[in-house]
Amino acid sequence: MPLIVTGTVGIDTVHSPHGSAEEVLGGSCTYFAAAASFFTPVRVVAVVGDDFHDDYHAVFKKFPNVDVDGLEIRQGSKTFRWGGKYLEDMNQRETLFTELGVLEEHPPKPPASYGDSRYVFLANSHPAIQRELLESFPDRVIGVADTMNLWIDIAREELLSLLAEVDGLVLNDEEAHMLTGKRNPITAGREILRLGPTFVVVKKGEHGAILVHKEGVAVLPAFPTETVVDPTGAGDTFAGGMMGYLAAAHSKDADIHMGSIQQAMAHGTVIASFNVEKFSLDRLADLTKAEVAKRYNEFAEMVSVREPVII
Amino acid sequence: MPLIVTGTVGIDTVHSPHGSAEEVLGGSCTYFAAAASFFTPVRVVAVVGDDFHDDYHAVFKKFPNVDVDGLEIRQGSKTFRWGGKYLEDMNQRETLFTELGVLEEHPPKPPASYGDSRYVFLANSHPAIQRELLESFPDRVIGVADTMNLWIDIAREELLSLLAEVDGLVLNDEEAHMLTGKRNPITAGREILRLGPTFVVVKKGEHGAILVHKEGVAVLPAFPTETVVDPTGAGDTFAGGMMGYLAAAHSKDADIHMGSIQQAMAHGTVIASFNVEKFSLDRLADLTKAEVAKRYNEFAEMVSVREPVII
Repeated sequence: MPLIVTGTVGIDTVHSPHGSAEEVLGGSCTYFAAAASFFTPVRVVAVVGDDFHDDYHAVFKKFPNVDVDGLEIRQGSKTFRWGGKYLEDMNQRETLFTELGVLEEHPPKPPASYGDSRYVFLANSHPAIQRELLESFPDRVIGVADTMNLWIDIAREELLSLLAEVDGLVLNDEEAHMLTGKRNPITAGREILRLGPTFVVVKKGEHGAILVHKEGVAVLPAFPTETVVDPTGAGDTFAGGMMGYLAAAHSKDADIHMGSIQQAMAHGTVIASFNVEKFSLDRLADLTKAEVAKRYNEFAEMVSVREPVII
Repeated sequence: MPLIVTGTVGIDTVHSPHGSAEEVLGGSCTYFAAAASFFTPVRVVAVVGDDFHDDYHAVFKKFPNVDVDGLEIRQGSKTFRWGGKYLEDMNQRETLFTELGVLEEHPPKPPASYGDSRYVFLANSHPAIQRELLESFPDRVIGVADTMNLWIDIAREELLSLLAEVDGLVLNDEEAHMLTGKRNPITAGREILRLGPTFVVVKKGEHGAILVHKEGVAVLPAFPTETVVDPTGAGDTFAGGMMGYLAAAHSKDADIHMGSIQQAMAHGTVIASFNVEKFSLDRLADLTKAEVAKRYNEFAEMVSVREPVII
């Protein structure tokens, strides 16, 4: 079933204790789409400026399942740019600069060829833009949004309107606390369910993610890895793997139950664990489906909880 | 197979956002033994003073699988006392006071009746005392130690001597960082394996635990819960459930493989999740085996990762 994603495509400069990457391809939509494309075709709705040169397009071409017909190149505008630095404790990062560029202009429109999209993911952007795209797909099977602290702070009303319409929300533990005032991620997740969604995925970075669903609660650790070169895009690739799984595994009319989201999260976890191994999209660009399947099976074994001892 | 534990039995005063408990039964050995007793008989080696009154003995009597023949009541000495306060973010606590009392005197000796113990757990205490007890059981099947930042700081040499003799070490992520200088828990775990143990369990509190074993790596989240009244003893009850499972599930000569430790951690996770629901030993004292089995099955379902989608 066709999956569509809107969000940012940008140019990142990243410093980490393992080195630096200058002016490389980044953006929430980019990471999401590359990750989802391991499981399903995915369509991109995003806008860049005329400084988005051929090398960036060449990266997208490494992911043949990613359809960039909806990537608008706007002449006279500048691509979104972000610079960040990860500290020795790589859970902490400093933003060095943010140049919104074309993101301050009107949002891109999905092309007519995307009209039959049924799985909709709204990667991090202004909730009013997310809502507009969501409403372009009234026949969707599922609509899921990501968000960030900035929108909770400056666009709370628009975010609440969006939450009334989406099926699912993905956000990190600090954002869940900020949105609800509740520090316990399950309590926060339950509060968010009251605002509309059927499920909330609270991401905890290296500590995994918690699913709070109207049917119950589930939890997964992150894939334990020593190889973390660049955490940028970890959350977006997690969401991409999750939504890619749902779009691949379900037919148009299938209900999406809690168990499906839970398995989808496992797929997202595995893809995200590869993404952090190199800068930018470098690891996903050389990743094979056989590697994904192998690590998935390792992960399933690592978290396996078998029969209890007779007590 | 008989399980023996040495560590502290003490009197705690705990304040949390959910209330206070004054002069209640606590201590690493106490929590460990109560938790392990759901799976196997467990023998206690500890010492208290003559201020350890009948109400505390009465709590032990609620756990008929806990053998307190090795709990020495030393006349003229004072029981170890600890006071702590959990902050609004219950991952943070302040120590209000520590009165070592009898812990500053000579350690207790295991009674002759404990001689056939084969599973040995050294709950948190001075590594020289831990090592002395360990060496009293040369026919042990497995010996596992816990430790804390204090001993890493002031008794590193004795701790390194202990590590050369134990099969496993249980410690939290900050302690693993402190012991090895490595922030990544897997990297830290691998460094510790070089010091002697066959496995290391790195505890991450509400985020679960990572197993680094000579055979590989495994990971489990904590049981997701909204009911956290008093986190005291969470790590000790986790270790108790873990060792209780191993002692119950294995015969004397069985090798203890990575898969066994992994399943043992799941049992520890479930017991620990009950312990935090009330102050002191209050929740474990009224816990039934049926409740343990039910939550174990819920947990297994929550972390279940099934067949991958065909990719």
